[in-house]
Amino acid sequence: MKAALLVRKGHVDLQEFPEEKIKTPDEALVQLDALSICRTDLEIIHGPTPTKKMPIVIGHEGSGTILEVGENVDHVKPGDHVLIDPNSYDLTCPTCRKGLTNLCPNGGLLGRDGDGVFREKFATHARNFFRIPDSIPVPIRPMIQQLSTTVHALNQIRIEPGHSVLVLGLGVTGLLLVQLAKLKGAYVVGTSTLPGKLELGRKLGMDAAIDRAKVELVPSVMALTERRGVDIAIETSGLPQLQRMAVETLAPGGTLLQFGVSGEETSYSLTDAYLRELIFKASRSSQPRDFVEAIELVGQGKIDLEYLVSGVVPFDHVAAAIELSRDRVKILKIVMLLNT
Amino acid sequence: MKAALLVRKGHVDLQEFPEEKIKTPDEALVQLDALSICRTDLEIIHGPTPTKKMPIVIGHEGSGTILEVGENVDHVKPGDHVLIDPNSYDLTCPTCRKGLTNLCPNGGLLGRDGDGVFREKFATHARNFFRIPDSIPVPIRPMIQQLSTTVHALNQIRIEPGHSVLVLGLGVTGLLLVQLAKLKGAYVVGTSTLPGKLELGRKLGMDAAIDRAKVELVPSVMALTERRGVDIAIETSGLPQLQRMAVETLAPGGTLLQFGVSGEETSYSLTDAYLRELIFKASRSSQPRDFVEAIELVGQGKIDLEYLVSGVVPFDHVAAAIELSRDRVKILKIVMLLNT
Amino acid sequence: MKAALLVRKGHVDLQEFPEEKIKTPDEALVQLDALSICRTDLEIIHGPTPTKKMPIVIGHEGSGTILEVGENVDHVKPGDHVLIDPNSYDLTCPTCRKGLTNLCPNGGLLGRDGDGVFREKFATHARNFFRIPDSIPVPIRPMIQQLSTTVHALNQIRIEPGHSVLVLGLGVTGLLLVQLAKLKGAYVVGTSTLPGKLELGRKLGMDAAIDRAKVELVPSVMALTERRGVDIAIETSGLPQLQRMAVETLAPGGTLLQFGVSGEETSYSLTDAYLRELIFKASRSSQPRDFVEAIELVGQGKIDLEYLVSGVVPFDHVAAAIELSRDRVKILKIVMLLNT
Amino acid sequence: MKAALLVRKGHVDLQEFPEEKIKTPDEALVQLDALSICRTDLEIIHGPTPTKKMPIVIGHEGSGTILEVGENVDHVKPGDHVLIDPNSYDLTCPTCRKGLTNLCPNGGLLGRDGDGVFREKFATHARNFFRIPDSIPVPIRPMIQQLSTTVHALNQIRIEPGHSVLVLGLGVTGLLLVQLAKLKGAYVVGTSTLPGKLELGRKLGMDAAIDRAKVELVPSVMALTERRGVDIAIETSGLPQLQRMAVETLAPGGTLLQFGVSGEETSYSLTDAYLRELIFKASRSSQPRDFVEAIELVGQGKIDLEYLVSGVVPFDHVAAAIELSRDRVKILKIVMLLNT
Repeated sequence: MKAALLVRKGHVDLQEFPEEKIKTPDEALVQLDALSICRTDLEIIHGPTPTKKMPIVIGHEGSGTILEVGENVDHVKPGDHVLIDPNSYDLTCPTCRKGLTNLCPNGGLLGRDGDGVFREKFATHARNFFRIPDSIPVPIRPMIQQLSTTVHALNQIRIEPGHSVLVLGLGVTGLLLVQLAKLKGAYVVGTSTLPGKLELGRKLGMDAAIDRAKVELVPSVMALTERRGVDIAIETSGLPQLQRMAVETLAPGGTLLQFGVSGEETSYSLTDAYLRELIFKASRSSQPRDFVEAIELVGQGKIDLEYLVSGVVPFDHVAAAIELSRDRVKILKIVMLLNT
Repeated sequence: MKAALLVRKGHVDLQEFPEEKIKTPDEALVQLDALSICRTDLEIIHGPTPTKKMPIVIGHEGSGTILEVGENVDHVKPGDHVLIDPNSYDLTCPTCRKGLTNLCPNGGLLGRDGDGVFREKFATHARNFFRIPDSIPVPIRPMIQQLSTTVHALNQIRIEPGHSVLVLGLGVTGLLLVQLAKLKGAYVVGTSTLPGKLELGRKLGMDAAIDRAKVELVPSVMALTERRGVDIAIETSGLPQLQRMAVETLAPGGTLLQFGVSGEETSYSLTDAYLRELIFKASRSSQPRDFVEAIELVGQGKIDLEYLVSGVVPFDHVAAAIELSRDRVKILKIVMLLNT
Repeated sequence: MKAALLVRKGHVDLQEFPEEKIKTPDEALVQLDALSICRTDLEIIHGPTPTKKMPIVIGHEGSGTILEVGENVDHVKPGDHVLIDPNSYDLTCPTCRKGLTNLCPNGGLLGRDGDGVFREKFATHARNFFRIPDSIPVPIRPMIQQLSTTVHALNQIRIEPGHSVLVLGLGVTGLLLVQLAKLKGAYVVGTSTLPGKLELGRKLGMDAAIDRAKVELVPSVMALTERRGVDIAIETSGLPQLQRMAVETLAPGGTLLQFGVSGEETSYSLTDAYLRELIFKASRSSQPRDFVEAIELVGQGKIDLEYLVSGVVPFDHVAAAIELSRDRVKILKIVMLLNT
Repeated sequence: MKAALLVRKGHVDLQEFPEEKIKTPDEALVQLDALSICRTDLEIIHGPTPTKKMPIVIGHEGSGTILEVGENVDHVKPGDHVLIDPNSYDLTCPTCRKGLTNLCPNGGLLGRDGDGVFREKFATHARNFFRIPDSIPVPIRPMIQQLSTTVHALNQIRIEPGHSVLVLGLGVTGLLLVQLAKLKGAYVVGTSTLPGKLELGRKLGMDAAIDRAKVELVPSVMALTERRGVDIAIETSGLPQLQRMAVETLAPGGTLLQFGVSGEETSYSLTDAYLRELIFKASRSSQPRDFVEAIELVGQGKIDLEYLVSGVVPFDHVAAAIELSRDRVKILKIVMLLNT
């Protein structure tokens, strides 16, 4: 079978790869039908993120159809459509025992810490496969993995209807966070320097849009909130200067949720955090419960993912798909389909 | 009657002051019986903290006996012993409406934003008086106000029995936080550079003491927690370098609670916060519910405050009391008694 | 001025009533512009609910314009449009100190425990007036009080997007709860025996409707939820048989929220509650924070109240308005307008 | 090897049983060192609780030493001392995906739904073994399983220092709940009709004891709480009349936590639940996180279990051990030791 291997930094090749088989009675084997590319993949391929081995099969967003299940597997059967949870965790360390599987110190991510899902077939512990309703179109299925990480982020905080939420950065995750905050009844303000993203955000439900190329962020937020500031600011760029602005926009008792990440340090004023009793939270990856919720939301039609698909290409053209994905202005997600 | 007035920075005088009276049917009049001095008072008297006017009656920790109540007042009656809540809040701004009276933008603190309680009699809205059981000795009553701020801090987070809690800095608030964390069943680690404070912390229930004058903090915490780090770190000094160390000691999913405050900036690594999905919280002042809880804890004998009393002097010697309070190594709290 | 007085059970008269004035510097005086009738009013007028005195001015849902404010009042000024919070609470009992003003044992409801708001002018502590944006049409303003009670109910529980919520009974509160659950991203199922209410519920966002006149409730819910049951069931009728059915529809770990109330007893199986680890919660009235949230939701256009207005009559015809309100099949809310 | 089999209702025989072996690379094999008997075992042996098969190895409270681990097992190694989690769950159903493994519809309990742990050796998925510090004495180790169920119960609610907690019934679980509530800083009231249990409860930290053989429960609770009632009542008997009394003792906004279970129905007044906005919760079994917490609490010396051991007998005398356990007045727990 074919697999997309990172052979050295910057070089992905579609190569023949050993046929995949079930190794234990707890595993299931999947025929992949759709794959999508994430910013993390680009950081692995072109950026500074190291992999545990090289060459390595890349990719962590994939969906498919169950071909075969081990004898202990009950919750999926051949023919079922599934989403892959690309996270591993040991379930026995103190962190997993507390339910924080996303923080397992012995865990890892497919396509970085082990061979990923950009291939024709894939077998793993059946626990990592989540059933998807047939009604969800194939091309959007793999992107539900990324949705699960934004679902996880919002499960870290409490958003009530009427709360004001500022989303900084309207890339794929920013736009998903806009949709989710809107779904929770929030008054959602989005900000970007790209007019196209602001327009798209409005279509997805943003109550207000702030174009940072034209106006100052903090005074604009204050004007929209009767000078109180927002209850919640979600920062998706990982840029320290944006994060500092995000802190300034918070109302007393407000929460900054940091979604994006960069290698840099940020700083803030202790006095400021004290006077407004601020809360800072970070969010990383997702847990099984977030997958269940993300699939439900797409299945119930509450979250639309179609608009994210900026291009669909055959898996054979994985190198072109990766190249397209590097355009962060015009491309949101590239989906690859397999001959199924 | 007599009152302690800050006449200019660094100078407190005991002076004659106009007799206090009830001004509305919602007010009550109190005869003060005990007063205590807080670090915030010292920052007002000697430090950079500005006051709204000058001269101003100082002080915000006081207890007394009700002399007279307005006709609308039901919950206290003449003869009742009460603690004073020195915080004002308007109850009608959006922040108060959400229950965050401690963050009211129109609020203030007695002894800084208005005349304080270091005087013989004091009248205000009866809502600010909380009944104290007679069984609590007079000298420790005013200190329950400070306890309420540490109760508030721990109400910002969830501590379960068995959680590990690191308290950085063992001044008055650090020691109270040790007691409260212990009361919640936590495994409490305290750290200081003063052997006397570490010894006192152990007597108050610390499970482990780390003398930063002798050993490195972070490796010591890791050794105590099987290399996981602590679930919660509470920083009471407001020093950026201590806060950075506190962050390093956190387990995956851990929380840093910032109690102390200074005028400085601190910085942290975005990547680090992301990888361990950390939570940072600040705590400011206290709310009415925290007063109720603090009084209950002292009344039920669950929190001991006696050890805090490093000296008792008559109110007439307020200047000496303030001078004594400046010794942060040997003095915890100085209490002033009135001739009642 | 005129006021609607309950002179004896079943008899409401529009009578001359002493002019209203500000009595303390904390009060404000309002010119009423709109009033609405609630089921509780009907229970006071025709039903078993006793009043603290007789005759008594009835009514607790009212909005108006500020005419005059006492000297201590800052948050509203003459000309402001306001909603009245008809609940009183002392703010000094242990229950209020914990923030549970809606459960204050010394509290009461206007129009039942004291003279109500069905009159031309009304003065009370300004804290009980909440500013309403001018953009909200006058006839729907008084109904925001009722909305606040359903906001309070949903604040008792945690609804996440994708959660399944069953609403039993589609009267005014049931329909509001449908809207709010929908606003929180839930998959909302409504049930009634009235086809008109089911149709209205669908228009307001119900994902599924169960006509209990035609099908069995419990099997229908199970069929809709892949045999899991719902995460949350909200019972608004107060009928024991419906409540028992509601319990049967719950998924493992599910919550029954009881909104309606009757004088009857209900029973449930201890074993059943244990096996599924069920949670039962009740909800009563609302708190200031719920008023803030309800006004925000209507002001932001997230909750529509227009459809509730089944009739608008002049205040002079209060007796007819009450009579109309007794038709629970065809009438949702009757609003009375004053000559303003 | 020997195993204790229930051969028919009421008859337990120690018989030869096939040697136990590791069946998959995920399993571990344990040599049992201590076993304890729970009320659930007695209901299986003598009472109405059915088993999935017969004969069946009984027992679900056991500890031991790891003999051998499968190749995938990292978190325990030969020689480690472990506690057995006797619950099974599939980790793939929607209930488990939400973290509610204790409510898994496909789950079961060892000794009832499959062969139990009253035997010399036992192998299962290594995930079900939790490491125990060597410092914990052997005889108390198996009882930590029962402690985990009370830890789980208290994790269903929020107890803050100073909260008042009433525990109804002072059997093994009642006494453990007293200890845990005390550990969380609560004001703990216990009630029983047995003076010996009340005395024991006092030694374990109860602030007040109510002897229901001598005084009425509800008025006694009201007298202890300044007529407010308790914040939390925990009912451990499962008797409807006690549960009804428990409801009467609740303060406004109070919570009834139902720990015990019987086959009966209970009833309550809808109006009463509404007026005080009560919360009813049930608790069932425990989750992995509760095992971690229970082991930590015993390891840190925060929870004492020694007093529970009413008798220690060799495993060969399992029939006598069961007989002794039926005396609910004088016997708390009987522990059986194996020749290790």
